[in-house]
Amino acid sequence: MHPAYDELARAWARSYRLNHLLAIASWDRAAMMPANGNAARAAAIAEMDALLHRLRVDPRLAVLLERADDEALDDLQRANLREMRRDWRSANAVPEALVEAKSLATSRCEHAWQSQRPANDWNGFLENLRAVVRLVREEAQHRAERSGLAPYDALLDQYEPGMTGAEVDVVFGELQSWLPDLVRRVRDRQATQTIVEPRGLFAKTTQQALSRDVMTLLGFDFEAGRLDESAHPFSGGVPEDTRLTTRYREDSFLQALMGTIHETGHARYEQSLPREWLGQPIGRPRSMAVHESQSLSFEMQLGRSDGFIGLLAPKLRASFGASAAFETDNLHRLMTRVRPGLIRVDADELTYPAHVILRYGIERKLIEGAIEADDIPALWDAGMQSLLGIDTRGDYRNGCMQDVHWSAGLFGYFPCYTLGALFAAQWFAAIRSALPDLDARIGEGRLEDLFGWLRDNVWLQASRLPTHDLVTQATGEALNPQHFRRHLEARYLG
Amino acid sequence: MHPAYDELARAWARSYRLNHLLAIASWDRAAMMPANGNAARAAAIAEMDALLHRLRVDPRLAVLLERADDEALDDLQRANLREMRRDWRSANAVPEALVEAKSLATSRCEHAWQSQRPANDWNGFLENLRAVVRLVREEAQHRAERSGLAPYDALLDQYEPGMTGAEVDVVFGELQSWLPDLVRRVRDRQATQTIVEPRGLFAKTTQQALSRDVMTLLGFDFEAGRLDESAHPFSGGVPEDTRLTTRYREDSFLQALMGTIHETGHARYEQSLPREWLGQPIGRPRSMAVHESQSLSFEMQLGRSDGFIGLLAPKLRASFGASAAFETDNLHRLMTRVRPGLIRVDADELTYPAHVILRYGIERKLIEGAIEADDIPALWDAGMQSLLGIDTRGDYRNGCMQDVHWSAGLFGYFPCYTLGALFAAQWFAAIRSALPDLDARIGEGRLEDLFGWLRDNVWLQASRLPTHDLVTQATGEALNPQHFRRHLEARYLG
Repeated sequence: MHPAYDELARAWARSYRLNHLLAIASWDRAAMMPANGNAARAAAIAEMDALLHRLRVDPRLAVLLERADDEALDDLQRANLREMRRDWRSANAVPEALVEAKSLATSRCEHAWQSQRPANDWNGFLENLRAVVRLVREEAQHRAERSGLAPYDALLDQYEPGMTGAEVDVVFGELQSWLPDLVRRVRDRQATQTIVEPRGLFAKTTQQALSRDVMTLLGFDFEAGRLDESAHPFSGGVPEDTRLTTRYREDSFLQALMGTIHETGHARYEQSLPREWLGQPIGRPRSMAVHESQSLSFEMQLGRSDGFIGLLAPKLRASFGASAAFETDNLHRLMTRVRPGLIRVDADELTYPAHVILRYGIERKLIEGAIEADDIPALWDAGMQSLLGIDTRGDYRNGCMQDVHWSAGLFGYFPCYTLGALFAAQWFAAIRSALPDLDARIGEGRLEDLFGWLRDNVWLQASRLPTHDLVTQATGEALNPQHFRRHLEARYLG
Repeated sequence: MHPAYDELARAWARSYRLNHLLAIASWDRAAMMPANGNAARAAAIAEMDALLHRLRVDPRLAVLLERADDEALDDLQRANLREMRRDWRSANAVPEALVEAKSLATSRCEHAWQSQRPANDWNGFLENLRAVVRLVREEAQHRAERSGLAPYDALLDQYEPGMTGAEVDVVFGELQSWLPDLVRRVRDRQATQTIVEPRGLFAKTTQQALSRDVMTLLGFDFEAGRLDESAHPFSGGVPEDTRLTTRYREDSFLQALMGTIHETGHARYEQSLPREWLGQPIGRPRSMAVHESQSLSFEMQLGRSDGFIGLLAPKLRASFGASAAFETDNLHRLMTRVRPGLIRVDADELTYPAHVILRYGIERKLIEGAIEADDIPALWDAGMQSLLGIDTRGDYRNGCMQDVHWSAGLFGYFPCYTLGALFAAQWFAAIRSALPDLDARIGEGRLEDLFGWLRDNVWLQASRLPTHDLVTQATGEALNPQHFRRHLEARYLG
C-alpha cells in the first residue's frame, strides 16, 4: 500500500497526457503550420505551458512527495520517486509568470528566426533574442538560488542532470589537448585523396523515398511515427508517435540523409522507451547527452562505419543512378572527409566539437552576464577563426543564427552534443567487446544485436539510473573521453 | 465597469486557447497521425476534454454569470453574455465522467472505423458503435432533464440552437411533398441528355494543384490554413489556422474538387469571423446549419452555377488536357446530373435531402430508444429503397458506415446539412436582389461582392444574433424552404 506514491503517479500521468498535445502542436508549428497561424499558436502553447507548470507546482505534491518517502516502495518506484522529486524541484524553482513570459518570448523569437535567418537579418533577430536572454538569465538566477548551483550549471542540469560547467571544462579541455593536432594529421593525410563529388539534381521525392528506406533499415517504426520537413531538423512528438523532420536540398543529398539517420537515432530511443513506464518520470530518456549519444551512435558510429557505407552505396546508385561518386571507396572518402565548415549540423566528426566548444563558451558568458547578446557576432567571428580558421564576418545566417537553440531558450544544451559523441564512442567500444564481429555484421545489414545492446543498456533503462550509474553499468567505467580518441584514430588514421 | 463580465471573458479566452491544441491534435489524428499513435492520442484528447469540461463547469462561473447580468453592458457584451450562458448550460448538463467516457468511446470508434469501413466490417464497427450510442443516449437524457427539451431535441440544440425535431419534421415534410416529384421530372428531362464522361488517370498531384488554384479563386487564405488529405473530408483547425482535408481518387476528379469547394465554404466562414471577438462565444460561427449553408453556398449555389462552371472548364482543360468532357456545356450537364447514388457527400442537390432524411429518421429513433444500433442496416436498406430506389443490402461500406458522424458521437448533426441547403438558397435569393447581375459577375470571376455580402451578413455576424434573427436581418424573412424549391426549379427545369 502506497497511496501517496499512487497519487503522485496519477498526477504525472495526467501531465504526460496533456503534454502530448503540446508536443504535437509544437511539431505542427515547425512542420505544418502556415505563417499567420503563429500568434494564436504561441498563445495556446503559452497557456498550456502555464497550465502544466501549475500542475507541477501544486503544493499538494510537496506533501505527497514527503509522505511517499515513508511508504514501502520497490526499487523502481523509489527511482521514479527520485525523478519526480527532481522534476518537482525544477518546476518549483521558477515562478509561473516567468515560465509564461519565456514561452511567449521564445515562440516569437523562434518563429521570426525562421524568416530572419534566410534574410541574414541579425538586427531583427537580436531584438527578440535580447528578450529571451533576459528571461533565461532570470530563470538561471531562480534555479541557482534553489539548487545552490552556479547559474549556468543550473541550466545545464536541466539537460544533463549532475553535470557542471567545471566538469565540461575538464572534458572539453582534454579534447582540446589532442583534437586540434589530430585534425591537422588527418587533414594532411586526406590532402592527397581524390574524391569524386556527387553531382546532379537529387530530386526531393527520391531523397524522401531513400530516407524512408534507410529509416526502415534502422528499425524506425512508421506505424508509430512520421518523417516530414522543417527549417531545422528535429525529433519531436511523443514516444508513441515520434515525429522526425529533415530538410532537403536538391543540389545535395548527404545532409538530408545523414540528418535523417541522426534523428532516427533519437527516434529509436523514444520509440523503445519501456512501455510500462510511459507517463512516469522514470520512463523518460535519461538525459540530453544520452539522447545525443543515440543520434550520434546512428549518424557517426554506425552511419559512417565501413560496413554501413557499404550498405548505403547500392541504395544511392539505385536512387540516383550509377556514378563513380557512389562507389563504396569514394563514398567512404566523402563521408569521412574532414573539412572545417560553417554549419554545425553538417560538420564532420572531428571538427564538430569545435562548434560546440564555441557555443558553450558564448552561452556560458551570456548567462553569467559577462557579455550581452549584442556581443555574439564578434565572439563568433573570433572563435570560428581561432578554432576552425574560418572567416564568418557578416554571415549571420551561416554563423550565429544557424541554430534554433538560443531562439528557443535552450541555453545549456550545446555541451550535450559533444558529451553525446563521447558516450556514443564509449557505447560502441563496449558493443565491440560484446560483439567482436560487429563490423562484419553491419556490412551484412545484421543490425539486430547492435540495436539489442542499445535497447537493453540504454533505451529500456530510461531514467532508472543517474547518468553516471547508467554508463558504469553499461560499460564498466565512468565517462572516458579516450574511447572517442581511439575511435577517431582508428577510423581516420587506421 | 463590469468586473464579473471581464472575468468571464478571460475564462472563455483561456478555454479558447486550450481548445486550439485540441483542434490541431484532432486534425492531426485524421490527417497525419500514424495508426499506432491512436491510443496515446485518444488518452490525451480525453484528458483535455475533461479539463475543458472542468473549466466550463467551474461553480464560480455561475456566480459571475449572475453578477454580470446586473452590470452595465453594451449590446455586444450582452449578446456575448447570452452565448456564455448557453455554453455554460450546455456544459453543466453533462457529468464529467460521461464527457470523458464519450470522448474515449468516440475516439476508439472513429479510429477503428477508418480501417473497418474499407473492410466492410459492420460487425466490428457495431461493437464500438453500441458503446457510443449508449453514452450519447445518456448524454441526451441529461441534456433533456436540464433543458426541458425532448432527448433528441436536446442534442439537435447543440448544433442548431432553438431548432426542434418537430420543426425539422415540418420542413422535411414540406420538402417531401414536392421534391420526389421534382426529382422525377428532372430525371425524365435529363434522360435524353448525352454526357461525355471524363475518363483518364487524374494524377493526384495535378488534382492537388487544381484544388489549390480553385481555393485561391474562392479567397481561401493559405497563409492562415492548409489543405491536406483524410479518409473523411472536413474543415478543422482554428479560425486563425483553418485546416481543410479532401480525398483524391485517380480515376475521378469531381468528388475531390467539389469536396474541396464545399470545405472552402466552411473555411471562409472560419477565416472571416470577426478578429476582435475571437475567443469569446459571440465570436463563434452561429450554428452548424449556418455553417453548412456556407459550404453549400460554395459547393451548390456558386459552384454549380453556369458562370462558375464556365470558370472551371478552362482550368480542367489546363490540368487534364483538352477533352470534349471539359467543354462548358458538357461539364454543366455532368455537374447538374441528378442520379440517386449511395454516397451522401457525392450526391447531387436534388437527391441530397433524401440522404439526410434517412439519417435523421434513424438517429432520432436511436436516441429515443425505439431502435438499437443493431437495427441500423435493415432500416438503412429499407430507407434507401423507398427514398432513392437503391439496393444497399450487404454494402455497409457505402451504406450506413459511410459517414464519420455517428462514430464521432455527432447525433443531431445531420439535419443541419439540409437546413443549410435551405439557408444557402435563401442567401442567394437575397444576393440576387442586391446584385442583379450576379450571374454575369460570377462568369467573369468577379466574386468580391458576392463574398462581401456573405461577409457582412453572415461571417462578421458570428453569434451576435440567434439564427432566426440573423436570417431575418439578412433576408427580410424567416427560414423559407420555397427559395430552395425556386432555385432547384430554375436550375434544373429552367
